[in-house]
Amino acid sequence: MENKQSSTSKLIEADAVIIGAGPVGLFQVFELGLLEIKAHVIDSLPVVGGQCVELYPDKPIYDIPAVPVCTGQELTDNLLKQIEPFSPTFHLNQEVTLVQRREDGRFDLETSLGQKFITKTIFIAAGVGSFQPRTLKVEGIEAFEGSQVFYRVKNPSQFEGKNLVICGGGDSALDWALALAGKAESVVILHRRDDFRAAPSSVAKMKEMCDNFEMQFIIGQVSGIETKDDKLSELKVTGADGVTRRLPLDDLLVFFGLSPKLGPIADWGLDIERKQLKVISTEKFETNVPGIFAVGDINTYPGKKKLILSGFHEAALAAFGAAAYIFPEKKIHMQYTTTSPKLHKILGVETPVFD
Amino acid sequence: MENKQSSTSKLIEADAVIIGAGPVGLFQVFELGLLEIKAHVIDSLPVVGGQCVELYPDKPIYDIPAVPVCTGQELTDNLLKQIEPFSPTFHLNQEVTLVQRREDGRFDLETSLGQKFITKTIFIAAGVGSFQPRTLKVEGIEAFEGSQVFYRVKNPSQFEGKNLVICGGGDSALDWALALAGKAESVVILHRRDDFRAAPSSVAKMKEMCDNFEMQFIIGQVSGIETKDDKLSELKVTGADGVTRRLPLDDLLVFFGLSPKLGPIADWGLDIERKQLKVISTEKFETNVPGIFAVGDINTYPGKKKLILSGFHEAALAAFGAAAYIFPEKKIHMQYTTTSPKLHKILGVETPVFD
Repeated sequence: MENKQSSTSKLIEADAVIIGAGPVGLFQVFELGLLEIKAHVIDSLPVVGGQCVELYPDKPIYDIPAVPVCTGQELTDNLLKQIEPFSPTFHLNQEVTLVQRREDGRFDLETSLGQKFITKTIFIAAGVGSFQPRTLKVEGIEAFEGSQVFYRVKNPSQFEGKNLVICGGGDSALDWALALAGKAESVVILHRRDDFRAAPSSVAKMKEMCDNFEMQFIIGQVSGIETKDDKLSELKVTGADGVTRRLPLDDLLVFFGLSPKLGPIADWGLDIERKQLKVISTEKFETNVPGIFAVGDINTYPGKKKLILSGFHEAALAAFGAAAYIFPEKKIHMQYTTTSPKLHKILGVETPVFD
Repeated sequence: MENKQSSTSKLIEADAVIIGAGPVGLFQVFELGLLEIKAHVIDSLPVVGGQCVELYPDKPIYDIPAVPVCTGQELTDNLLKQIEPFSPTFHLNQEVTLVQRREDGRFDLETSLGQKFITKTIFIAAGVGSFQPRTLKVEGIEAFEGSQVFYRVKNPSQFEGKNLVICGGGDSALDWALALAGKAESVVILHRRDDFRAAPSSVAKMKEMCDNFEMQFIIGQVSGIETKDDKLSELKVTGADGVTRRLPLDDLLVFFGLSPKLGPIADWGLDIERKQLKVISTEKFETNVPGIFAVGDINTYPGKKKLILSGFHEAALAAFGAAAYIFPEKKIHMQYTTTSPKLHKILGVETPVFD
């Protein structure tokens, strides 16, 4: 797959920006591509595939038409193959923070990594929202987020020589504990039980290091904090025995997994009903803001079923709806991939010759 | 594939009858199956697959989501595999001739082969209509249809000892010419040009037999008929040279291919707009007759695109719409094939075990 991943932050003028690189966002690329509309795709996750890949990469899916069974990862791979002829540009690991109508009718759009776009149309295919780390629910902890409390590691070297507590029992917690042990002054893994949802080899390695006093594992949960000179100095940790102990630290890393949030989408002036975007008709799946379309699990309309299949159909109709904004002069004719030499050219395939 | 093909003509009481065994009709079986509704499928063609298989079995299709490329035949095969767990009953080679509301709210339904049903719901997935043989357009010829003029061969032995003219240049014309040569008194193939859309081996065999005077090939078209004693006695055949000659015969077989017709559907009290069935909403894709749904290319609604994908989505929503008639007491919950143990049981697959 040779899709381009943008690296510069130059202003991009686009015909279509798709928010969400899940199956429906990917298929939106395809449907736009058939109409000769090139798309940029933004996703908060570092990889494409959306909740299919984030929540159930290996679970079989049985209800994609003409695909008797596939995993979320296989579905994603097949869609990536299908959109290859349209070489979309992916902007991953970033959220859309701003969407604003311009005077010329187009939209200003910005991401959390500072990438700016001016686009004629926007397709929100954000599924259940963007995936955000689950936070530690302890009074007063928010104040230290980014200075001593971290839900993501961007720069591992900042933890060198520090006394670290790492919360969580999954692969992220274990992987970072193993990676930082030896570099940090000390590493304590804190998990509510002696049972990990992580690769068995990582768990074995961690236990071996604990036996060698290179790391410490504590069963318990953070129940409070202590501060000193405006800094987080100690955690209060309540153990399985019900006793609360104090645990001094420099930095706290928390890996409780990701959970989806609607996030900034709520601020773009779109009609929202129970965390879903209302579309004004099932003709184009356009929201109340002309030029912004909502497809897949994030939208709602009478009869809506949250099926991947339905998102695919919505993407097809939304593409036709958007063409009117992008090619206002052009009459869009329905063409079929089986028979249209024009579509064959766009798809980069040969038109079969029949008598 | 072990789908049952019905052979008896016993009255069948059904929850759901699907008219049309094209891709959308087949996927309708799947969506009904997930809701534990068993379906009967009727098609006028002798095989499943509908126009995909009838019109373009070998042409690649590129716009089925997550299937970068497949032929109409492959699409059909994959759908048949997908609906295997629901073992639908197919009733092929027959048209639905009657649909009538009963006093008890169900429908009487009959086919051209005399199969009778009483069904709670009907799904019309008839695409462009039922495929009917293209007829010979010559004045007065209709009078002999079924007695001396045939568009289908049901009983080949009736042509033994007869002087036959076979019109057409495709596989059906060639296959029947070769099959009946030697059994009939004489066989003349009549085709408008010396170029056949048939298997090259059949064409070669036909030419060899012509060389051996076992068959005759004439280039030309039927431009009129002569009758004698109320029987068709001669065809007037206009050749490439513009000269019209007389060709005596006993029986005429015409194989000009199939073309779709809406047919008896027009008589069932359904709202029709430009040969399409109007659905009252995109919530359930139900027609103006409660309990009768229209899905796929045959329906129309604002924004309708004739995409196979759209038919698949419509089938999903129609299934939920129908469940209300079939299980009036039951509340239908949306379940997902990735996670629902109940759906796994219905599909006959194992529920994966996760922590």
